Amino acid sequence: MTILKRHDTGAIAHLTMNAPERLNALSDEMLAALQAQIETLTHDSSIKVVILSGAGKAFCAGHDIKQMNSARDSPDGGKANFQDLFTRCTSVMTGLQKLPQVVIAQVHGIATAAGCQLVASCDLAVATEDTKFGVNGVSIGLFCSTPMVALSRNIPRKHALELLTTGNFMTAHRAAELGLINQAVPNDDLKSATLLLANTIADKLGSALKIGKHAFYQQLEMPLDKAYAFTGDVIVENLLHQDTIEGMNAFAEKRQPSWKKD
Amino acid sequence: MTILKRHDTGAIAHLTMNAPERLNALSDEMLAALQAQIETLTHDSSIKVVILSGAGKAFCAGHDIKQMNSARDSPDGGKANFQDLFTRCTSVMTGLQKLPQVVIAQVHGIATAAGCQLVASCDLAVATEDTKFGVNGVSIGLFCSTPMVALSRNIPRKHALELLTTGNFMTAHRAAELGLINQAVPNDDLKSATLLLANTIADKLGSALKIGKHAFYQQLEMPLDKAYAFTGDVIVENLLHQDTIEGMNAFAEKRQPSWKKD
Amino acid sequence: MTILKRHDTGAIAHLTMNAPERLNALSDEMLAALQAQIETLTHDSSIKVVILSGAGKAFCAGHDIKQMNSARDSPDGGKANFQDLFTRCTSVMTGLQKLPQVVIAQVHGIATAAGCQLVASCDLAVATEDTKFGVNGVSIGLFCSTPMVALSRNIPRKHALELLTTGNFMTAHRAAELGLINQAVPNDDLKSATLLLANTIADKLGSALKIGKHAFYQQLEMPLDKAYAFTGDVIVENLLHQDTIEGMNAFAEKRQPSWKKD
Repeated sequence: MTILKRHDTGAIAHLTMNAPERLNALSDEMLAALQAQIETLTHDSSIKVVILSGAGKAFCAGHDIKQMNSARDSPDGGKANFQDLFTRCTSVMTGLQKLPQVVIAQVHGIATAAGCQLVASCDLAVATEDTKFGVNGVSIGLFCSTPMVALSRNIPRKHALELLTTGNFMTAHRAAELGLINQAVPNDDLKSATLLLANTIADKLGSALKIGKHAFYQQLEMPLDKAYAFTGDVIVENLLHQDTIEGMNAFAEKRQPSWKKD
Repeated sequence: MTILKRHDTGAIAHLTMNAPERLNALSDEMLAALQAQIETLTHDSSIKVVILSGAGKAFCAGHDIKQMNSARDSPDGGKANFQDLFTRCTSVMTGLQKLPQVVIAQVHGIATAAGCQLVASCDLAVATEDTKFGVNGVSIGLFCSTPMVALSRNIPRKHALELLTTGNFMTAHRAAELGLINQAVPNDDLKSATLLLANTIADKLGSALKIGKHAFYQQLEMPLDKAYAFTGDVIVENLLHQDTIEGMNAFAEKRQPSWKKD
Repeated sequence: MTILKRHDTGAIAHLTMNAPERLNALSDEMLAALQAQIETLTHDSSIKVVILSGAGKAFCAGHDIKQMNSARDSPDGGKANFQDLFTRCTSVMTGLQKLPQVVIAQVHGIATAAGCQLVASCDLAVATEDTKFGVNGVSIGLFCSTPMVALSRNIPRKHALELLTTGNFMTAHRAAELGLINQAVPNDDLKSATLLLANTIADKLGSALKIGKHAFYQQLEMPLDKAYAFTGDVIVENLLHQDTIEGMNAFAEKRQPSWKKD
C-alpha cells in the first residue's frame, strides 16, 4: 500500500494521502512521500493542477504524535529529531506554494493542527460542509506555532488567535467566510466541485498560471512600489509568450485561441 | 468628446471615464487623461473627495487589447512599449493612493482585469449589485500580474488566487464581504449611495483627511513599532492645526466647530 | 474609587476601567493605571487570561479631550505633552500584545477612537450586539492616525478607511464579520460568553499560551521563510517542556494529562 497515491487525469494530478488508520497523519513517511511528489511535479510541465485529498474519514489530523513521542528516547530528548521534523514539514508546506501547478486541497472530515496548516498552505481549498478545522495542539500543551504561520496569512488575526488559544473547531462555512478555504459544499458535491474548479484552471495556459502563481506569493511580501516594479516585469515577460500573443489576437478577433503549448 | 470628463460640485470632483464604445478601456489616451487629472488634483486643495465612474455599460474592462496588439509590430515585439505602458499604468494606480483627496470608485456593469485593479486602487468603492468583478486575463493567456498587486492587498489570498487562476467573475455582494468594495447597492441607488458617502467625507476637515489618508498607506507597510512611532508624530502634527484646536474646543463645549479652512 | 479595578477568579484577571462619568476615557490617570497593571501582570505567572471591560454605559470613548485641551496653555501649544501622551498610549496598546496572558476585550455600548484601538489591540474581543464601533476623530478634525495602526491590522483596508474618513459607526455584527471582534452576542450574554471563552483558554497550559501568543505577533511581521525558521525553533522549545511531554503522552494513551505547572 502506497502512503501517497497519485493518478493523473489530463493535466490534473490527484494526490491522495493514504494512511486512513492514522487519519493521514504527517508521519516521517507521509512527509517524505509528499516531498518526493513535490520534487517530481516541479519538473512535470504536463500537469497544471494538483488536487490533494485524504483517504478515509479525515483529510489530515496533523503530525503523528506517537511517532514524535518515540523520538524522546534519544539522549537529547528528541530535540535534533524534532528540529529535523519541522524542517522537513516546512519544506513540504512551502514547497506546495513553490510548485508551478495550482494546488487545490480537497478537504473532508477533519483538518487539524498541521492538517489545517496543509489546507492553509495550498493555493485553493474546497471542503465539505461538515469538515472540522482546528489548530488544537494547545489542548495537549503544544501550541500550533508552525501551523499558525500559514493560518495567519489566510484569515484575520483575532479569528486565528481564537482558534490557536482555545483549541476550538471552526466550521467549513466560517472557514470560507474568513478565507481559509474557497468554498464549503455538501458532502456529495466535494469531488465534483473540486473537479470543476480544477478543470476551469487546467483549461488555462500553463505558462501563464506558472508565471502568475509564482509572482503572486513573491509580490505579497513586497512593499507596494517594489511589488509593482516586479510584476510589471512579470507581465511584460508574459506578454511576449507566443501563446499569449495568440490569445490576445484571438480575443481581438472574437475567436477561440489556438495554443501550441498548453 | 473628452475621454475623461470632470465636473465639480462643491468639494467633490466627479471624474467620468468616457470611452463607452471600448468599455472605458485603459488605452494610452485614458491613462494620460487620468494621470493629468491626478497631477491637477494633487495641487487642488478645494477638492476633498474624487468620485471616479465610467460612462456607458461598464466601469472599466481593463487594458485596450487592440492597442496593445498593434505595438507588436516594432522590432522588439512590443517589449519597450509594454514596459512603458505598465510604468504609466502603475503611476495612475499608485497615484490615486497618493492623492490628498479620498477617491471613491462608483462602479457598475463590469470591472475586469486592470478595471478591477482600478477599483482595488481607489480608497473606497460602491458598486451596483449586478457588477461583475474579475481578473480574467488568464483566459486569454495573460495572467493579471499587475492587477493582483492591488487585489491581493484588498481581499484574502485564497479568494484572490481563485479569481486570478480561474478567470471567473465575482458578484458585488461577495466583493463587499471580502473587502474589494465597501458596499453593493441596487442599481438605482448607485449615484445616491456614492454621493452620500462622498458628502459625509467632504463635510470633514480637508487637512485632517489629507494627513490621515497619506499616513494610512504608509503605516500599513511598517512593522507595528515603527507604525506607532510614525503615526504618533502624525497625530501630534494634526493636533496643532488651528482648525483641529477649534474642533476639539467645540466638542468639549458641545457645539458645532467653526472651521476657517475646510 | 479606583480608576481601574482588578479582581481575579482562578487564572483569570478581570480589569474594569472605572471612570463611567467620562465613558472610561483614556486620561493620563487611566493610561497610568493600565500601564501599571500591564507591568504587574507581565510577572504574574498565576494569571493566564485577562478580561478588560468598562464600567457604566460604555467600554471606552477614546482619549480625554478636555484634559488634552487643557495642555494647550503651555508655551509650545501642548506639543511636548501630546508627544508624551501618545508615547504612553502606544506603550499601553502594544503592552497588551506583549503580555504573556491572552487579553480579551469585553465590550459594550461604545468603543470609539482610542477606545476602538483598545479593542483592536486586545488579542480577542467579545461585544454586545448594540455596541457602536468607530474611529470618528475626523468629525472633530483629528484623524484617528494612531488608532488606525491597530484597526488596519484587524480589518480589510477599504472598510478601515471608510470608518476613518466618514466617522461613521460600525455595528458589532459587522465588526465580527470583518475581524475586529471575535463574536457579537445579545446584551445579556456578554459576561457569560466572555467567561466561557476565558475559561476555555485558562484551561490550557500557561507556558504553551505564553510561547504561542508571543510568537504569533512576531511571525506576523516576518516574510514566510523567516516566519517558519522562527516558529520551528519555538515549537521545538515547546516540545521539550515537561508538561508538553505529559500532554502528548496522555494524548497517545487516550487519557487526561496531569500537568504540574499550569
